[in-house]
Amino acid sequence: MLICEIVSVGTELVLGNTEDTNATFLSARLRALGWAVKFRQTCGDHLGRLTDTLRLALSRSDCVIVTGGLGPTYDDITRDALAALLGKALSLREESVEEIRAYFAGRGRPMSENNLRQAMIPEGAEPLRNLWGTAPGIRARVGEKEIFLLPGVPREMKAMFEAYLAPALAERSGGILCTRILRLFGIGESVLDEKLSAVLRESVNPSVAPFAGEGEVSLHVTCSAETQAEANGRIEEKLGEILSVVEEYLYGEGEDTLASVLISRFGAQGLTLAAAESCTGGLLSQMLTAVPGSSAVLQGGVVAYTEEIKEKVLGVSRHMLTEQGVYSLACAEKMAEGARRLCGSSLGIGITGVAGPDGGTEENPVGTVYIAVSGKSGCVSERFLFPVTADARERIRLLSAKNAMAMALKYAHLFQNESKKQGNF
Amino acid sequence: MLICEIVSVGTELVLGNTEDTNATFLSARLRALGWAVKFRQTCGDHLGRLTDTLRLALSRSDCVIVTGGLGPTYDDITRDALAALLGKALSLREESVEEIRAYFAGRGRPMSENNLRQAMIPEGAEPLRNLWGTAPGIRARVGEKEIFLLPGVPREMKAMFEAYLAPALAERSGGILCTRILRLFGIGESVLDEKLSAVLRESVNPSVAPFAGEGEVSLHVTCSAETQAEANGRIEEKLGEILSVVEEYLYGEGEDTLASVLISRFGAQGLTLAAAESCTGGLLSQMLTAVPGSSAVLQGGVVAYTEEIKEKVLGVSRHMLTEQGVYSLACAEKMAEGARRLCGSSLGIGITGVAGPDGGTEENPVGTVYIAVSGKSGCVSERFLFPVTADARERIRLLSAKNAMAMALKYAHLFQNESKKQGNF
Repeated sequence: MLICEIVSVGTELVLGNTEDTNATFLSARLRALGWAVKFRQTCGDHLGRLTDTLRLALSRSDCVIVTGGLGPTYDDITRDALAALLGKALSLREESVEEIRAYFAGRGRPMSENNLRQAMIPEGAEPLRNLWGTAPGIRARVGEKEIFLLPGVPREMKAMFEAYLAPALAERSGGILCTRILRLFGIGESVLDEKLSAVLRESVNPSVAPFAGEGEVSLHVTCSAETQAEANGRIEEKLGEILSVVEEYLYGEGEDTLASVLISRFGAQGLTLAAAESCTGGLLSQMLTAVPGSSAVLQGGVVAYTEEIKEKVLGVSRHMLTEQGVYSLACAEKMAEGARRLCGSSLGIGITGVAGPDGGTEENPVGTVYIAVSGKSGCVSERFLFPVTADARERIRLLSAKNAMAMALKYAHLFQNESKKQGNF
Repeated sequence: MLICEIVSVGTELVLGNTEDTNATFLSARLRALGWAVKFRQTCGDHLGRLTDTLRLALSRSDCVIVTGGLGPTYDDITRDALAALLGKALSLREESVEEIRAYFAGRGRPMSENNLRQAMIPEGAEPLRNLWGTAPGIRARVGEKEIFLLPGVPREMKAMFEAYLAPALAERSGGILCTRILRLFGIGESVLDEKLSAVLRESVNPSVAPFAGEGEVSLHVTCSAETQAEANGRIEEKLGEILSVVEEYLYGEGEDTLASVLISRFGAQGLTLAAAESCTGGLLSQMLTAVPGSSAVLQGGVVAYTEEIKEKVLGVSRHMLTEQGVYSLACAEKMAEGARRLCGSSLGIGITGVAGPDGGTEENPVGTVYIAVSGKSGCVSERFLFPVTADARERIRLLSAKNAMAMALKYAHLFQNESKKQGNF
């Protein structure tokens, strides 16, 4: 497999002022085009250091993509570093000068003279026209190897990558690299590692890599092959192996989230939902309504922070609150029922608990959360005790909202006429 | 100035599955501690390549911080690379074993044996206790130089950096670098750039750098000095210059957010709040309740996605909905009043609009949002038209929630007995 190295240039990067989203974008796109990325480097706008960085990259990779430092100001020195590396002089390219002048003229803006620095290209290298901004890119060959310079502005960089680099790189790599992502909920990374030990260690092509998220794990199954059909076949076979062990935890694939799966599955089944949230304070509703099309499923919700609102809006009885307390399975159930009745939805979710940092008791320490799902034919509820680490509030809230969605997916079939459900989701 | 290099380890990074937010965090923190970052490197989980990467880093920097690859699975090989670099064997450290066992025992979870891999530390190196997860960090000296290994999970990495590395690095760097951050809302980056042109261009030490966020801008004022007192004095002077121009947009400093400022200010004034959200779907409530202590201010909220819930729960009249429509100032006002009455709070906020991607009309295109703030003595409302770009839904929702908070801050004084308000916030 051919190797491409990514070099990100910019003092704003090494100062920590800007996230280097360009490197992530390029890594993902290169993988899809059948190239391997083994190393990335980041370097400030400094001629000597950048020249060294480029030299190292070129020594160990078949292709180098550099982003940033092509602008008009004095600290943009990427083109100078390339010239130093190639041992060539920079010269002003007339076609690039015309394009830069045309860019400003087309927008009715005056052009300051420093913009012409951007038309300085090392001799023997090829300018890449920038239709999305002013700084041209640069393409240079070094023996069998190639080096591409692109602007650092993500919008311009992405457009130029797709226009010029992607076709050239796809042609050169010959093969393709294909990834399928399985999304699992309710299993930790270390338990998954034990259950799937052999598959994880012995799978080479396709490879199988686990990634841990908050309360969930995804498995990336990646295959390099000459054709898409070959890759698909080998990945399907590997998925079969994996799912024979952990299918009960599978809730989705690719870009699926618990929220998107819930919205699409409930939408297809004609189920509607209402949420009553205490400690999550609207997070569950917000995650669901972030999914386009959610209005067909989520009818509404109540953020019931005070006992008064739990009573008045959700119909949780004062007697129950006094007897069992606001942190109880009974309260979560009454909240879920209250939300369902109030909104006239098929299902209601109730969440009450202690997100912290204060408010914990011996009986209900910080991290204790009660979640209930209510339907016409009944109600299920669970008590969770989420681990409390420093700054746990957001994590407890997120785990609560995710577990509420997982419960709604898991138990929805109980409240429908036909129960065809298998597995957890 | 001493130089620190950052090495990010993980195949998920070079595959482009994960943004490398750790490197950005470390760059910014190191700068504040008086260290210079000249290079960053990223490398997959591969023993040979990682060992080379570490060797290069150590050859040109005074200190190296490595994140990632310390977990329990077979592909976590950062500790092996360090051992190879140092020419030392790995040995199982009893104190780390005990800590890992205690971590699982404390959470009532079974520990799979592979977790003990995390207690393998190169001889001569020092384990750094991880109170926030299972993988210990590692600290090793190589002559005058130091190398630190931290877990890749951002939450654990940040906590361990602050606990162990920050004090050691600050002591070694001698000088200090001090940054104050001003937070402005309601002014765009280009308008700010025009208004503050001279200050932004001519300020060297302290330097003044603007960073654009969603609907807001922050100004980072950074001064390097020998003592904290000297830095403070010079920064104060610069803040005076800046605020004489843009004080009306200032809502907070440092880590303040609109939500945290609203909660602390309303809390201090004894004001309470209730939210009625349509297109934001709980986002406003969620942002407010993410702030510890918010329960004293936000009493509750209603996510009113359907007209039925706007009528039934919030008391918006059918007549009004028919006459003026659900996207109108009148509807936002009735929702705000409804929320305030329902929860018995001092103020109510109502938000209704079109977040898209569908649902826009000629009169109310996608991006149109109506926001109202209601108090006992009246109601103010505004129509917003947020720009629609690709994937605008989340952006429109976020701008709606932020503008709602800004309006609540701006108009709260209208609904109080004494009106002492000056400026926008």
